[in-house]
Amino acid sequence: MTKLLRSWVESANAPQTDFPLNNLPYGAFRFAGGPLHCGVAIGEMILDVTRLEADGKLSLPAGTFASGIWNDFMDLGPKAWADFRTFLTEALAEGSPRQAEFEPYLVESGKVCMEMPFRVSEYTDFYAGRHHAFNVGTMFRGPENALPPNWLHIPIGYNGRASSVVISGTDIRRPWGQLKGPDMEAPIFAPSRRFDLELEMGAIVGRSSSGPVSVQQADDMIFGYVLLNDWSARDIQAWEYQPLGPFQAKATATSISPWIVTQAALGPFRTSTPAREKELLPYLREPGPMLYDIDLEVGLAPEGKPETILSRTNYNEMYYSAAQQLAHHTTSGCPMRVGDLLGSGTISGPEKANRGSLLELSWGGKEPLTLDTGETRSFLEDGDTLTLRGAAIGDGYRIGFGSCSGKILAATETPYG
Amino acid sequence: MTKLLRSWVESANAPQTDFPLNNLPYGAFRFAGGPLHCGVAIGEMILDVTRLEADGKLSLPAGTFASGIWNDFMDLGPKAWADFRTFLTEALAEGSPRQAEFEPYLVESGKVCMEMPFRVSEYTDFYAGRHHAFNVGTMFRGPENALPPNWLHIPIGYNGRASSVVISGTDIRRPWGQLKGPDMEAPIFAPSRRFDLELEMGAIVGRSSSGPVSVQQADDMIFGYVLLNDWSARDIQAWEYQPLGPFQAKATATSISPWIVTQAALGPFRTSTPAREKELLPYLREPGPMLYDIDLEVGLAPEGKPETILSRTNYNEMYYSAAQQLAHHTTSGCPMRVGDLLGSGTISGPEKANRGSLLELSWGGKEPLTLDTGETRSFLEDGDTLTLRGAAIGDGYRIGFGSCSGKILAATETPYG
Repeated sequence: MTKLLRSWVESANAPQTDFPLNNLPYGAFRFAGGPLHCGVAIGEMILDVTRLEADGKLSLPAGTFASGIWNDFMDLGPKAWADFRTFLTEALAEGSPRQAEFEPYLVESGKVCMEMPFRVSEYTDFYAGRHHAFNVGTMFRGPENALPPNWLHIPIGYNGRASSVVISGTDIRRPWGQLKGPDMEAPIFAPSRRFDLELEMGAIVGRSSSGPVSVQQADDMIFGYVLLNDWSARDIQAWEYQPLGPFQAKATATSISPWIVTQAALGPFRTSTPAREKELLPYLREPGPMLYDIDLEVGLAPEGKPETILSRTNYNEMYYSAAQQLAHHTTSGCPMRVGDLLGSGTISGPEKANRGSLLELSWGGKEPLTLDTGETRSFLEDGDTLTLRGAAIGDGYRIGFGSCSGKILAATETPYG
Repeated sequence: MTKLLRSWVESANAPQTDFPLNNLPYGAFRFAGGPLHCGVAIGEMILDVTRLEADGKLSLPAGTFASGIWNDFMDLGPKAWADFRTFLTEALAEGSPRQAEFEPYLVESGKVCMEMPFRVSEYTDFYAGRHHAFNVGTMFRGPENALPPNWLHIPIGYNGRASSVVISGTDIRRPWGQLKGPDMEAPIFAPSRRFDLELEMGAIVGRSSSGPVSVQQADDMIFGYVLLNDWSARDIQAWEYQPLGPFQAKATATSISPWIVTQAALGPFRTSTPAREKELLPYLREPGPMLYDIDLEVGLAPEGKPETILSRTNYNEMYYSAAQQLAHHTTSGCPMRVGDLLGSGTISGPEKANRGSLLELSWGGKEPLTLDTGETRSFLEDGDTLTLRGAAIGDGYRIGFGSCSGKILAATETPYG
């Protein structure tokens, strides 16, 4: 197991930092009112690579970081990804001769706003957590029909809405929608009453493809990972989702954490998917460990009150890896593009304390949760702030994702308010 | 009813042209190997507006047509759309003083290649044809459950894959996919055996929005329409679509016709949606006629053989208009963007001769069609060329869409071939 790599940026050597030299995640930041810059997190600082490039200190194609987001860099491909990581690792290492040259390009992370680190080309969300699928299936269709017949054969997914992906910190407005409860005679148009979170990981596609790709090729196409909260209106979903899947229930917003943690940084934490209950078709079999051991948690803080941790789980609970999902995604010849985002599906573990959605935690609202503040929750209330956190835990260091948060605002008074 | 507007471009006055002065649809073309140009179809000619702009002959923001596609123009908004249409109509009218000035900017449509006229931001496909929904529902779930309970209340839709949208003329490779017929014990990975077309219209969103919009606002946001063929692998769809909807079955390709027929050109052909079987919620009610009377047909030509018309139908068969679909699409707060494409859903009419897919025409393969050549078809065969055509029929003129065609190529021998 790799050890902590020490940096001349002192805060990067603290045992609890999310951003040691081993990590080097990629984000986009701005000073209030200023233009976007590409940045690399190191301890409590951000290395401004857009300014480094402008000053001629990087050997990448001109303008790679000019847009302030990472799509153009991704487009350079895996060799450039690896070379740049090596360059950064050496430049920021304790004892590097570049310290004096690079120090002026560090900005304090507390003084800037983080923005979307890449332009989302298209967004696909999967349903690839065994425990989540069983829990939700049981609630919607009963335990005997919980797992659809295709579930153990296909990483089930649906296309989501890229335009609705937002950066952590963006407020989330409770949606209006068409609903029909089981006791209603006709549907109504009203604000969602069963608005929920989904704790997920997002995989970012860094290479384009124009035909089917193997699981190994798919793994090579993945640039990095973020935390992802797929906000979900359960009452809208229940009424709309047959026969063509969730649509408006999932289109209000999907929040992601601001730092893209690269696949390279996560290398020491690779792990295999759980044992197969049915053998997969050859095109979906993993040639090696392509899932990751990443501790995850989600907390809920009511307006002005302390946070309660709702759930702790791990990315290694997924039945299908992002590489398997991506390989399946291309089987039809579906072209993939740089900046495509794949949501893992909700990551629930085997126990109640490991469930990644309120739908599961409150069992469809039948067993409201009691928060540390004494309040109860079946679904989200206005003013609640939800925060996902995640980290791969190494020997004396952590590859952290930072956090992914969003606060629920009340619905507008009228739909067109 | 408007009459034919005469143009100094003689071929635009022929009664059977798709592109009289009344139409003026927008496309993107190139000479072999050359850059993209924005063009306007007029009879058998194309007016090169990218070159007109480069020569300073247009009063639009500099560079509007520099990309050779229409997204930047759409982004200028409805006043610019109307002004430019008025300008073109006057410049190309019989007797216009601009004839000598504009003649050098006409290119023969037969000498150029048509390309995608706009960059598709995201693609949504609906399921909004009453006859199609009933036919397919009957086959999949039996006549008593044919129409899902939500169908008469919601324009049911799902997010498709923008990266798979291609221009008419692009060959369509038969996809591989995971299939499981009702008689198979386990799924297999194989080329689709039930590959199909879907005759649809596509509506192009020309204005962005960031919250719910009314049906009237939605109608105002629609820039124009194209013919759309949503290629569909029925065997992949049948196995994958529960519970989250079609995914790889619809991701191989979606073909569109090259000319964007503007909403303005279609104005004289507005018509109301059919009578409601259940009253819609107020947010979905039409404030006026927002559907269009457009004759549609689809033909199939086996390799090297003449074409058989499979079906004739009309866009006015849709139960929901594109404006209603778009309004519903925004209810959750889902942001819409310039270049979003909405597929109408398959447009089948009441009779067998009006069905817009082979699934319906051959009743799931149980009643193969006999072509004029004597061959039969349940689903598409390799080498088949499918062609959609459409036109709104005026008094002595037609607002034509041109055609939308694609030829089926055999699947690759191995999935990764």
